[in-house]
Amino acid sequence: MKQALTEAKAAGARGEVPVGAIVVDSITRQVIAVAGNETECNHDPTAHAELLALQRACKIKGTPRLPGCDLYVTLEPCPMCATALSFARIRRLYFGAYDPKSGGVDHGPKIFSHAACHHQPEVYGGIQEQECGEILKEFFRDKR
Amino acid sequence: MKQALTEAKAAGARGEVPVGAIVVDSITRQVIAVAGNETECNHDPTAHAELLALQRACKIKGTPRLPGCDLYVTLEPCPMCATALSFARIRRLYFGAYDPKSGGVDHGPKIFSHAACHHQPEVYGGIQEQECGEILKEFFRDKR
Repeated sequence: MKQALTEAKAAGARGEVPVGAIVVDSITRQVIAVAGNETECNHDPTAHAELLALQRACKIKGTPRLPGCDLYVTLEPCPMCATALSFARIRRLYFGAYDPKSGGVDHGPKIFSHAACHHQPEVYGGIQEQECGEILKEFFRDKR
Repeated sequence: MKQALTEAKAAGARGEVPVGAIVVDSITRQVIAVAGNETECNHDPTAHAELLALQRACKIKGTPRLPGCDLYVTLEPCPMCATALSFARIRRLYFGAYDPKSGGVDHGPKIFSHAACHHQPEVYGGIQEQECGEILKEFFRDKR
């Protein structure tokens, strides 16, 4: 999560919402891919940290599925990213701050709770929750 | 929808699930971007036709939001793509076949129905439904 936080802070410094994600091989514990939000700088509404980290990890592994991998992200994934995690067959999702407004795991559409969701990762929320949430609060406070 | 069907057929010919999408400027009626599924050939679980068409249109327009644009797609979008359509502020969504198994608009998590969904496009489903569904049925019949 420390490395995801580093990515989140780097995203914030670029003027992006400070969220960071990493994909880790669950056996070797090696970090395969890292990413921070890039929606504004790339003019891409889908360029969330989780999606970018998944895309990069899949490219490196040469497969659209990552069954032996875990994803760490500083914020509860939105419904778009949660669905992508399911498609990628991610083993475990570890996230930092809960997102009652835009989250899609424990809030809103609760993506993994539907019968039609073919793969549900194990989910661990609230990891280093305070630090992960604090950089978001700071970012939006400075914006106002 | 005819152009989205052409993209769907091209995707099927590449061995991808035959789904196609286009983004249209609602004022000029000009097609801004087209795409078919590329998940297998690009090793990317997020490379659905809708996501690729949105990403391409945003790149061309130089903005992560497309409020004056409509998206046509041959199949009901999954929850990932439906959420991306909301982020992109797409004006209208026209889709072909309904997808009771993996759809996220009229089925499953029904992405646009949640209070936390900040933008709901106008939705028109079942456009050229039979033709859009038939190419999917043929594809999966041939796979068996």
